[in-house]
Amino acid sequence: MSKCIYVVGIGPGSGDMMTEQAKEILEESDVIVGYTVYLDLIREQYAGKELLSTPMRQEEKRCLLCFEKAGEGKQVALVCSGDAGIYGLASLMLELGKGYPDCEIQVIPGITAASSGAAVLGAPLNHDFCVISLSDLLTPWEQIEKRLIAAAEGDFAMAIYNPSSRKRADYLARACRILMDHGVEPERACGYVENIGREGTRAVTLTMKELVRAEVNMFTTVFIGNSESEIIGGKLVTKRGYRI
Amino acid sequence: MSKCIYVVGIGPGSGDMMTEQAKEILEESDVIVGYTVYLDLIREQYAGKELLSTPMRQEEKRCLLCFEKAGEGKQVALVCSGDAGIYGLASLMLELGKGYPDCEIQVIPGITAASSGAAVLGAPLNHDFCVISLSDLLTPWEQIEKRLIAAAEGDFAMAIYNPSSRKRADYLARACRILMDHGVEPERACGYVENIGREGTRAVTLTMKELVRAEVNMFTTVFIGNSESEIIGGKLVTKRGYRI
Repeated sequence: MSKCIYVVGIGPGSGDMMTEQAKEILEESDVIVGYTVYLDLIREQYAGKELLSTPMRQEEKRCLLCFEKAGEGKQVALVCSGDAGIYGLASLMLELGKGYPDCEIQVIPGITAASSGAAVLGAPLNHDFCVISLSDLLTPWEQIEKRLIAAAEGDFAMAIYNPSSRKRADYLARACRILMDHGVEPERACGYVENIGREGTRAVTLTMKELVRAEVNMFTTVFIGNSESEIIGGKLVTKRGYRI
Repeated sequence: MSKCIYVVGIGPGSGDMMTEQAKEILEESDVIVGYTVYLDLIREQYAGKELLSTPMRQEEKRCLLCFEKAGEGKQVALVCSGDAGIYGLASLMLELGKGYPDCEIQVIPGITAASSGAAVLGAPLNHDFCVISLSDLLTPWEQIEKRLIAAAEGDFAMAIYNPSSRKRADYLARACRILMDHGVEPERACGYVENIGREGTRAVTLTMKELVRAEVNMFTTVFIGNSESEIIGGKLVTKRGYRI
């Protein structure tokens, strides 16, 4: 294998939350491919590179562009926000890679919103936890519902990605009601963070019954504590252990 | 609040997998506190600092040391491997912080083994997933078992931390059997990674029925795919979506 395409997680947005490894790979690349919004986050820093994007929902095209450019002998990096392997394009690249056997694909991890959002809120994921996306673009809602029920029954702390969008304004409220129907108390300690690692970061701690009515958007990550989580001095804290 | 203690996730071990933010904070600190093994990873780089450690299981003492040093007017960073808020000391610091109202505690996220291990294996966590620790030091086994069952029933991909130790040599096998009793097929695509981000990194992909007999240790992170995960070209891949 002579060619290697890097699928790089760039973290939440601010450059200082990227790893050195990710930065070095972007510096060594000829071509950086990504969704326009993510490219904008790094455009200034890598102005000398060939920066290529495709619009939202054209993820397959974006991946194929990487193989095309690698075929021309270019060193290619595909950037994803957060971690490239958590709702990112790592798996699609590996699937499509079957058609390009001379191309190695290497995934470079980044700080995902579960980590960066948790740090802003305190320590909501400091014990076993689930990460669930409420986007039903590629997943049937029944599957999402099944996972919410399992997460409640397992008393997991949770990080909820994509809690809302224009078309799915009521999804977080629906998810909260499902959780409450399956044992999550209305007083459960919760929180959410908007614009993690970008301008306008805003963290809110609240109870489950308040979360049902919270206004969140596509730049929000929601956190739900487990049954022992507490709000301590304005921070959402899930304990490392249980009293045994 | 005049004092701020940083609880810093240093990632899996190699310096280039730390964020710039974490590096800057360590550089600006007078005192770096941590478990000896983690301090050893950074000892050379921060040789001019006061480096303080306490042995394993003396985590509370380690945290109190931070408040003590901050009280002396020192700038203190407490380092944790991976992410400080995922099985790290962030929550214990926030709990103990109640006794030190003039001390702010800020959590600095790092790359957790779920992210770094997944990247080595391919993209096993590229859809909804759970993170579960098999250590029953602070959690009753019944709780761990309940979570494994919930994870299987919700068809989550999984990252399993602390799959084994000298005293708990058979825990991974026990966990695998519980998962298989609750719907995880013997042919389910799985994998594990040893010594992530350190010398001797080793990644293995295998099926659930092979995982039951796998020899893992305390430096291994185990990954279990969901029902649609596949091994593609030696990589463990969980798809971004479902066929809908």
